[in-house]
Amino acid sequence: MMKKSIFLLFVVLCCTGIVAQGQQLKSPNGRFELAFGLTKEGTPTYGLKFKNKVVIKTSNLGLELKLKPDEELHLKGQTDGEIQLKNKSSLYSNFEISDSKTSTFDETWQPVWGETKNVKNHYNELAVTLNQKQTERQIVIRFRLFDDGLGFRYEFPRQKNLNYFTIKEERSQFAMTGDHTAYWIPGDYDTQEYNYTTSKLSEIRSLMGSAYEGGNVSQTSFSPTGVQTSLMLKTNDGVYINLHEASCLNYSTMHLNLDDKNFVFESWLTPDSHGDKGKMQAPATSPWRTIIVSDDAREILASKMTYNLNEPNKIQNTSWIRPTKYVGVWWEMISGKRSWSYTNEFPSVQLGITDFSKAKPNGTHGATTANVKKYIDFAAKHGFDGVLVEGWNIGWEDWFGNDKDYVFDFVTPYPDFDLKGLNEYAHSKGVKLIMHHETSGSIRNYERHIDTAYRLMNQFGYDAVKSGYVGNILPLGDHHYSQWTNNHFQYAVEKAASYQIMVNQHEAVRPTGLARTWPNLIGNESARGTEYHAFGGIKPNHVTILPFTRLIGGPMDYTPGIFEMNLTNGAHVNSTLANQLALYVTMYSPLQMAADFPENYDRFPDAFQFIKDVGLDWDDSKYLEAEPGQYITVARKEKNTEKWFLGSVNGNVSRASKIKFDFLDEGKTYLATIYGDAADANYKTKPQAYTIKTIRVTKKDTIVQHCAEGGGYAISIIPINK
Amino acid sequence: MMKKSIFLLFVVLCCTGIVAQGQQLKSPNGRFELAFGLTKEGTPTYGLKFKNKVVIKTSNLGLELKLKPDEELHLKGQTDGEIQLKNKSSLYSNFEISDSKTSTFDETWQPVWGETKNVKNHYNELAVTLNQKQTERQIVIRFRLFDDGLGFRYEFPRQKNLNYFTIKEERSQFAMTGDHTAYWIPGDYDTQEYNYTTSKLSEIRSLMGSAYEGGNVSQTSFSPTGVQTSLMLKTNDGVYINLHEASCLNYSTMHLNLDDKNFVFESWLTPDSHGDKGKMQAPATSPWRTIIVSDDAREILASKMTYNLNEPNKIQNTSWIRPTKYVGVWWEMISGKRSWSYTNEFPSVQLGITDFSKAKPNGTHGATTANVKKYIDFAAKHGFDGVLVEGWNIGWEDWFGNDKDYVFDFVTPYPDFDLKGLNEYAHSKGVKLIMHHETSGSIRNYERHIDTAYRLMNQFGYDAVKSGYVGNILPLGDHHYSQWTNNHFQYAVEKAASYQIMVNQHEAVRPTGLARTWPNLIGNESARGTEYHAFGGIKPNHVTILPFTRLIGGPMDYTPGIFEMNLTNGAHVNSTLANQLALYVTMYSPLQMAADFPENYDRFPDAFQFIKDVGLDWDDSKYLEAEPGQYITVARKEKNTEKWFLGSVNGNVSRASKIKFDFLDEGKTYLATIYGDAADANYKTKPQAYTIKTIRVTKKDTIVQHCAEGGGYAISIIPINK
Repeated sequence: MMKKSIFLLFVVLCCTGIVAQGQQLKSPNGRFELAFGLTKEGTPTYGLKFKNKVVIKTSNLGLELKLKPDEELHLKGQTDGEIQLKNKSSLYSNFEISDSKTSTFDETWQPVWGETKNVKNHYNELAVTLNQKQTERQIVIRFRLFDDGLGFRYEFPRQKNLNYFTIKEERSQFAMTGDHTAYWIPGDYDTQEYNYTTSKLSEIRSLMGSAYEGGNVSQTSFSPTGVQTSLMLKTNDGVYINLHEASCLNYSTMHLNLDDKNFVFESWLTPDSHGDKGKMQAPATSPWRTIIVSDDAREILASKMTYNLNEPNKIQNTSWIRPTKYVGVWWEMISGKRSWSYTNEFPSVQLGITDFSKAKPNGTHGATTANVKKYIDFAAKHGFDGVLVEGWNIGWEDWFGNDKDYVFDFVTPYPDFDLKGLNEYAHSKGVKLIMHHETSGSIRNYERHIDTAYRLMNQFGYDAVKSGYVGNILPLGDHHYSQWTNNHFQYAVEKAASYQIMVNQHEAVRPTGLARTWPNLIGNESARGTEYHAFGGIKPNHVTILPFTRLIGGPMDYTPGIFEMNLTNGAHVNSTLANQLALYVTMYSPLQMAADFPENYDRFPDAFQFIKDVGLDWDDSKYLEAEPGQYITVARKEKNTEKWFLGSVNGNVSRASKIKFDFLDEGKTYLATIYGDAADANYKTKPQAYTIKTIRVTKKDTIVQHCAEGGGYAISIIPINK
Repeated sequence: MMKKSIFLLFVVLCCTGIVAQGQQLKSPNGRFELAFGLTKEGTPTYGLKFKNKVVIKTSNLGLELKLKPDEELHLKGQTDGEIQLKNKSSLYSNFEISDSKTSTFDETWQPVWGETKNVKNHYNELAVTLNQKQTERQIVIRFRLFDDGLGFRYEFPRQKNLNYFTIKEERSQFAMTGDHTAYWIPGDYDTQEYNYTTSKLSEIRSLMGSAYEGGNVSQTSFSPTGVQTSLMLKTNDGVYINLHEASCLNYSTMHLNLDDKNFVFESWLTPDSHGDKGKMQAPATSPWRTIIVSDDAREILASKMTYNLNEPNKIQNTSWIRPTKYVGVWWEMISGKRSWSYTNEFPSVQLGITDFSKAKPNGTHGATTANVKKYIDFAAKHGFDGVLVEGWNIGWEDWFGNDKDYVFDFVTPYPDFDLKGLNEYAHSKGVKLIMHHETSGSIRNYERHIDTAYRLMNQFGYDAVKSGYVGNILPLGDHHYSQWTNNHFQYAVEKAASYQIMVNQHEAVRPTGLARTWPNLIGNESARGTEYHAFGGIKPNHVTILPFTRLIGGPMDYTPGIFEMNLTNGAHVNSTLANQLALYVTMYSPLQMAADFPENYDRFPDAFQFIKDVGLDWDDSKYLEAEPGQYITVARKEKNTEKWFLGSVNGNVSRASKIKFDFLDEGKTYLATIYGDAADANYKTKPQAYTIKTIRVTKKDTIVQHCAEGGGYAISIIPINK
C-alpha cells in the first residue's frame, strides 16, 4: 500500500519537462540554491545556500551496506577480496552520474484538519541517477527544493544487483557552517521525553550527561554527541535551521551524530536486535531528510514542507475524523491522587486466570463508573466532545517493567467499570468516551488483540483511541524507533482507519508528517508532555521550543490546561495559568485535552471559558512572534467561522509582547477577551495570578501585553455582529 | 488458558492422601525407585533406579536466574554484595525441604486419535517444597513416577519474592552411569532436520562436525557436546533410556549439553535475542523433563508417558478432527520437476504491488488448476481424503533467505489457481483441499494475517493447514525454539481450533505431547523427513530411529510412499519400495501422505493397494520387534474394524524378521497380504524389487520375512467372514 503511492508520485513528477541545468537547483522563490556533486572517490555530495549564504557546507551522501556473512566470507577468500568487499558494501562511493533530471511541481491541497485551510506544495526537483560500474548498481538521489527548505531522499530502483539489502548505516551528512546554537535532546532509541538543552554545538559533549537527567525508563544512549531530530539550530548571524525527516515508512528512525570538531552531523539510524539499521527490498526509498531554513523563526513554525513530502491522504471518506476537545480520568493518576489499578491484593495478575470480581478493590481506582460519570457530566455541561478513561481494563496491577507478554487484552473492564452503561450514558449526553490501549511495549500481544479491540470500540461507539507504548519493546531486541516497531505504529494507524477510528499514539515514534496520508492519526506524544510536571519536571521555556522541534512532524497531545500547579504528589507545574491557556493555540493539535480536574476548573470559571471557547481546526494561522526558547505568539482563524484565537507563550524571562491585529479582516470590529498574566504572576511563585479584560479591536489596533516568567496570554477574538 | 488447567490438575492430585515416605518413591509396578535429596550446599538432587540398577546417578536440579542490571548493580555496592548476588541468582542451592507430599493417580483416557483406544495414566507422585531462607523464596519440584519412567518439573508458586523472573539457565542434570550408546542429532536452536549419528557418548565431541553435515539452512550451534531431545540412549547392559520433555508451554525448548568426562547431561535452554532463557511469572511451571526407561526397546516405543504428562483435551467438540490420508502437489517441487513460484520475471516481488496477472508465467508452476485437478481426480479415484497444494498463493518468487517481513498474505492465489473452482471440484468428488501457509519465519506477518487466512479456509471448506517456518525467525534475534516463538506455534494451534482447523506444522518446535491437549495438532515435521532424500540424503536406517526419538513427543508428517527412487534432480531415495509401505504403520501418524506422483503409483497398482487400504487410526498397537537403528516391527488394529496392519522397517543390514501372529483374535482367520522385499532387493541397487503374497493366518501362525538393507515389509490382515 505504502510503496504503491511512491510510484504514483513519480508519474506526476516526470512529466513536467523542465530542462536539467547541470547539478544546480534553485527554489521557486530563488532564495535557496542547491549544488550537487561527486568527490573524486565518487561520493555524492550536496551543499545548500540560503540568500547567497552557505547554510549546509558540502556534505557527503550515501549508505553503507552490510553484506551477508557467507558473502563476506566468500569475498575475503578472493584476490582483491578486501577491495571487492569494500565496493560491495559501499553505496557511498564509486558512483558516476548517469542521468539527472529537474522538474517543478506546484499544487495546493486541503488537509482534513490543520493550521490552514490550504497548503501550498511548490518545489523544484533534481533527481540524480548514480551508477556504480564495478557492482553494476544504481541509486537515485532526489532533491526537492521548496521556498522554505530542502528535502532529499535515496531511491533504490528495481535492478539486478541491488535487490534485498541490509543497511549498516546511512551516511547522510549535514555540515554546519559554524558552532551554532542548538535546541536539542539526547540521542535515544526509545524515548524523546526529555527536557531540551540549549547550547552551542561544541558544548553538546559536555552537557550530554545532564541532558539525560529525568528521562523516562526506556532510556538508551549511543554516542556522546548523538542528538535527536527534529533538531532546531540557529547560526550566529541569525539563520534558523531545522533538521528532521519526512515520511518515515518501513525504515528506522534517524538520529544525528555530531562530529564536534568540524560541526558535521551525520545520520545514525536506529538498530534492530542484530545492530542492523534496515532491511530493504528494491524498489524502495528512504524517508526524506529535511532542512528547513529561514532568517525569520516564524517561517520555521509556519513551514508545511514536512507534510508536503508525505503522500496525499489515502482515506477516502474522512467524515468520521473530527478534531476533538476532551477531558479525562488521567491527571488524577498522574498527579498521584488515584491509581490505574483496581486491586493491591496480588503480587502479579494473569489475564483470564486472576478473578478480579473476587479481588479486594484498592479504593484508589480512578476508572470507576461513578468517577467517569462525573467527568461525563462535566464534559456535557461544558461542551467537550470526549472523555478519556485510563485504567478501565484489567491488567494494570503489574503492567510495567516485567517484560510481560500477555499484559493487557484491551477488552475486559474492571468490575467497577460499566462499559456498556457508561457509553450509553455518555452518548445520551452528546459525549463520547475515548478508548485507551496501553500496550506496555508488548507489540505482538497488541497486534493479536487489535482487531477485537477495535471491534469493541465500534460496538460501543468509541471513535478514538489513545494508545501507549511504555517500557521495553517485546520481543526484546528491537527498539521503539527501529524499523520493525515503526512498522507496527503504522500498522495500528492503517488498521484503525479501516475501523474508522482516530489514533493518538503515546511513546511511539515522533511523527514525520504521516498524518497527511493518514489523517486519522490525530495525535502523538513522542516528547516530554505535561505529565512531566508531575514527575521529572519541565523547564518553563519547554513550550517555546516544542513547536520548533517535536511539532515539525505533526501535532502533539500535550494535555495542557493545568490550573492547580501544586500537585498531590508534591510536584509543581512550571507554568502560569495564562500560559496554560495559550498552549491551546501555540501547540497546534486537532486533539486538545483539558487535563486538570473538574473541581479545579470550577474554581476558575472565567479562565476556563477560554478552553471552552477555543477552536480546534483552522482556516488560517499567523505566526506573529517567535524565538526558540523565548516566545511564540500565533493567531489562528477558526475553521468556517470568523473567530480568531491567539496564544502567546513565554520562556524564562518576563517580557512585553507587542501585537498588531493587522491579520484581522478589513472593516470588522471584534471583541477581544485577553487572558493574561497579572503583573505579579510568576510560574513558580504566583502561577494563578491572571487578569481577564475585554476590549474592542480592529485590524488597525495594537496591544502590548505583559508576559511573566513561564507565562503568556491567550485571546479570543469574536466579531461583533452589527 | 494454558495455566488454568495446570491448577485443575493440582486439585486431582492433592486429594489422594498417600502418606509421604521420606524422599523415596516407587513406581506403581515397583520397577522404578526415585531418591530425592539435598547436597550440603542445599542443592536438590535426584537419582533413579530401574529394576534395582542405577540408571540416573545422583543429579543436581535447579535454575540459575538472571538479575536485572539495576538489581545487580545495587547488590554489588553492598557489603557481602557478591554473596547476596549469588544467593539471589541461585534457584539451585541454599534450599531446605519444607514439605514433601506423595500421592498416586490412576486413570484411563481416550485420545481423539492415537495408537491405542485407551491410554493408562498411572503414577506415584512426590512433590517436594523447597525453601530458601535468605531470599524467602520457595519452589516445588514435582516427580511423577510411572511404570515406564519418570517425569519431573519445577513449579514456582505465587509468592512475595519470586514473582517475575528471568531464567539464565536451567540446571537439570541427567547423570549417566557410563559411556552409553546415543542416537543423537546435534544441538541447534532452529532445526532438527539432521541425520542421526549413533555413537558412544565419548565420541560425540569428535563426531559433532560431521553430524551437522547436510543440515538445513537455519542451522545454529552452541556447544561441541550439545545434542537435542528426544535423545535415545542404550547402556552396555541393554537398558534403553529416552530423555525428552513434555508439555513445553510458554517456555523455551530444552537441549542437553554433555559433560563427556563424567557423562552428565545438563539442560541447555534456547535463548532469546538477549541470551536470556526464559521470562517467567509466578505462578508458573516448567515443562516436564522425561526419562523413559526399559530393558525392552519395544516398551520405549509403546510408552505414553509424554502424553500423560500433558493436560487433557481442551477441545469440547472434536467431531471435525479426522485422521487424513492425502496426496499433494509437493513432491514435484521437492524432486525438482516443478516450482512453487509462478513467474521468473522479477528479481523480487511486493505483495499488493507486483501485478501477477500481467506477469509472464514460468511454465514450471506446480499449483495450476489443471495439475491440481489431476491430483483431485487421483485422490477421488483411490479414496484419499485430501489434496495438499503448495505454491498456490502469491509470494514464492522471493520467499526465502531475504528476511522479508511481508512475504505472504496467505489468501491471494496465483492467476492460474482457481481457488473457488478447485474447492468446488474437489468437494463434488468427496475430496478436500489441504491449505498451505508458508510463513518463511515471519511470525508477526503470519499472526497479522492468521484470522483472515483461517476465515478463508472456513469459507472455501478447507479443514486442515500445513504451515511452514523455513528461514530465520523475524524479527531477528529469536529462534525457532525460543519461548517467544514456541508461544507462536501454540497460538496458531489454539486459534486454529477456534476455527475448527487441523494443523500440521513444519519447521516448528518438535512436539512434547501437546496434541493430547490440542488434538487438532495432527502433525509436525520437526525432523529430517522424506524430502531430504531429494536434497541432503537420508541414511537407510533413519526410520528405525525416528520412532525412538522424534515420535516420542507426537506424530510426524514424514510424507512416505515414494515408489520411484531415482529423482528428477539426480538424487536417490535410500529405501526399498516395501520399506516405504511399512512406514505407514511404523511411523504412527493420523496424517499420512502418499507423496509420490500419481503416475508412479499407476506403475505399481498392486503395491499402491496397501497405501489405499492401510488404516489411520487405531484401537490397539503391538510393538513386535524393535532395536534403534536396526529395525522396528509393529502391528496395529484399525479403529472400529477387525483389520490389522503390520509394518516392519529395517536398517542398514539385511535380516530375517520372525513374527508371531499371537496378537490376533482367538478363533478368527485372516487373509494376510504381505508386501515384502524381493530376495535381491536393496535400497540402493534394486529398491523396487518387491513381492506380494497372500496367506491365511490365525493367532497361532508365525512367519519369517526377509528384510533387505533399507527394506522392510507391510502386511494387511483382514478377517475372513465365515
